[in-house]
Amino acid sequence: MGIIGESPVSGRSITLASVPSQRRIDTFLRDSVYAWRQNEPDICDFAFGNPHEMPQAAYVEALSDALAPRNEQWFAYKTNEPEAQAAAAASLQRLLGLPFEPADIHLTTGGFTAIPLALKAVADPGDEVIFTLPPWFFYEPLLLEAGLVPVKIRCDAETFDVDLAALGAAITPRTRVVIVNTPNNPTGRIYPPSLLKDLADMLEGASRSNGRRVYLLSDEAYNRIVYDGARFHSPAEYYPYTLLAYTYGKTHLAPGQRIGYVALPPAMPDRGALREALAALQMALGWIYPNALMQYALPRLEQFSIDIGELQRKRDLLVDALTGMGYRLQSPEGSFYLFAHAPIADDEAFVDALAQRGVFVLPGVLFETPGYFRMSLTASEEMIQRSLPVFAEAIAGSGQAKEKAT
Amino acid sequence: MGIIGESPVSGRSITLASVPSQRRIDTFLRDSVYAWRQNEPDICDFAFGNPHEMPQAAYVEALSDALAPRNEQWFAYKTNEPEAQAAAAASLQRLLGLPFEPADIHLTTGGFTAIPLALKAVADPGDEVIFTLPPWFFYEPLLLEAGLVPVKIRCDAETFDVDLAALGAAITPRTRVVIVNTPNNPTGRIYPPSLLKDLADMLEGASRSNGRRVYLLSDEAYNRIVYDGARFHSPAEYYPYTLLAYTYGKTHLAPGQRIGYVALPPAMPDRGALREALAALQMALGWIYPNALMQYALPRLEQFSIDIGELQRKRDLLVDALTGMGYRLQSPEGSFYLFAHAPIADDEAFVDALAQRGVFVLPGVLFETPGYFRMSLTASEEMIQRSLPVFAEAIAGSGQAKEKAT
Repeated sequence: MGIIGESPVSGRSITLASVPSQRRIDTFLRDSVYAWRQNEPDICDFAFGNPHEMPQAAYVEALSDALAPRNEQWFAYKTNEPEAQAAAAASLQRLLGLPFEPADIHLTTGGFTAIPLALKAVADPGDEVIFTLPPWFFYEPLLLEAGLVPVKIRCDAETFDVDLAALGAAITPRTRVVIVNTPNNPTGRIYPPSLLKDLADMLEGASRSNGRRVYLLSDEAYNRIVYDGARFHSPAEYYPYTLLAYTYGKTHLAPGQRIGYVALPPAMPDRGALREALAALQMALGWIYPNALMQYALPRLEQFSIDIGELQRKRDLLVDALTGMGYRLQSPEGSFYLFAHAPIADDEAFVDALAQRGVFVLPGVLFETPGYFRMSLTASEEMIQRSLPVFAEAIAGSGQAKEKAT
Repeated sequence: MGIIGESPVSGRSITLASVPSQRRIDTFLRDSVYAWRQNEPDICDFAFGNPHEMPQAAYVEALSDALAPRNEQWFAYKTNEPEAQAAAAASLQRLLGLPFEPADIHLTTGGFTAIPLALKAVADPGDEVIFTLPPWFFYEPLLLEAGLVPVKIRCDAETFDVDLAALGAAITPRTRVVIVNTPNNPTGRIYPPSLLKDLADMLEGASRSNGRRVYLLSDEAYNRIVYDGARFHSPAEYYPYTLLAYTYGKTHLAPGQRIGYVALPPAMPDRGALREALAALQMALGWIYPNALMQYALPRLEQFSIDIGELQRKRDLLVDALTGMGYRLQSPEGSFYLFAHAPIADDEAFVDALAQRGVFVLPGVLFETPGYFRMSLTASEEMIQRSLPVFAEAIAGSGQAKEKAT
């Protein structure tokens, strides 16, 4: 028997379980039509950035090769394997043109874990952390778990860029971190260099007037998922006080395998102190290093990605078809996602109507942005083709459907 | 340039990096003779519970089999795979005789992560958590990261049991969790049923008088590493308010592969609320589920362990040899470790003297217990044989050496 009037669980766990954005995604994952139909063969699954085709042979081979033990210590405790750090640093240098040092790669069990690691290294309970809406689902619970205060600003509705006026108004003396996610989930926007430069100037100014550094946390989960041959630019190229969080889960469309990192750019001041902070936290958060096998595989994983051209063709197919039907959307420049206006104001009703026909997308309310919906381009092309009549029917009669040419 | 007078890192990271027990282990790992000699072929490495022989073929085969993709979602995001939960629950039932339910297995990236998960599910910042000395190195940083207050009691010096009088004196109205580690690292003691029963009665009484439940966190990393055919008993058999933390890292001597769990026993009251709390935290701590591959491998990993008989033979060889030389120690009943009196009061000087000869053990100060040293039985038999003359020489002249029979 429990003790009367006493909670069997912690207050912090109750807080986390009751975050509205979190409750909505939990409900969707556990109690929605999607929850019980997601493994059916005939559905069209655009819900999450999950694979819907068999894993690449190169991926399986990289892990298989890493599995063969070379020495007695093959599966011993690992911190940061030097070969993995070196490969990740070299790859970042190729991508961004910055000479990252291997010792500044702090390996984690995915980008998901990299975010609280980075936040806890610089921010203390009560510090404010700013991020933009629509956001990745999990920023808020991660911040709350870390005792940090989420401050949300809405992105520019036209461009999906960071709204610098809104950001300027949101910064207070308690602001310690601004999270930037580019290429963006869910909007698909890649922030242009001019924006990143203005952002850097603003954060430098705020740091000066606050007398306390405002860090930038660059969530770059999708920095290899870029279309039309665009060059990705990291905030780390413009603002040295940038902690860069990355995951291999998107690049290989293998999010279940849990490997990523926090990287400190070479121009970061106080790198020594930050390295110490990250190392202490990597242990104290529960030895959050990726497992030995994934660390051994990392140098090979750096040599390929999923087929970006194929993803781009699926994007083009969907964007052309949906805009042709009358859907209003911007073509994503990167990431897995397409974030479109729902043809009726009630995005949940729209999403439910699609779900009745076996087409699963996420409603804007899950991103604190009603009136929109998100689709993942990781659906198979066959799913896309099957879904198009359903999308056409869903917009018909909404008043937004385009007239058919006669 | 940094801002003058301002810390580039968080206060919490500074706290963690400066915990004395943590600094000592960090220094040992990074700046000691061991740090630069640990990969040399001729040393005798008793420092950590790491493998010193090639991995078992069965282990590699279990992972290799799990690696071959069966479907498109093979490397998709995973929470708790039902087959893994079922296999772990069935195995616990065989071990402890309690009908664990699969839904009460909450999979984590190792037992290391299971501990903060369990603690944060029931305890809030400011709550006190009691553990015994000598302890596992990392309890204190894990508690501090969680905002909890470490309260340390010394174990019974003769039996290495939990000192119930000391425990009773340490419990306050703020006590929320008592951590028990059996089979114990570093002492090798398995707590007897009579002690576990008395402990349960004490915690039940304290919960009643506090008007707030005192939970027990049972760290059972070594519950399959048991010698002389002894039957292991879990605190969960005696106290229903027990959160059980386990890792596969010891059972297969593959600590780099990061898979473990928190289990709730079937008699735990309020299991529903605890399941919700654990699920919310598994996400908010950074999606701390083990990776897909390890979850698929788990049912096979449940079918074998390292060779306990071989470990027991190494224990017997070492115990007989060292006691024959005059070392004072208790033969470990379980776990990987042997915790012995150093023949001179200064355990660090003793350990340094061994290190000069290429024999690496850990000084008692790393366990807040000066005057002792710890050795891991995971060293190879060949290392053990080579080390014996060094141990004999180290005790000679200390006044504790046994006279040779003449």
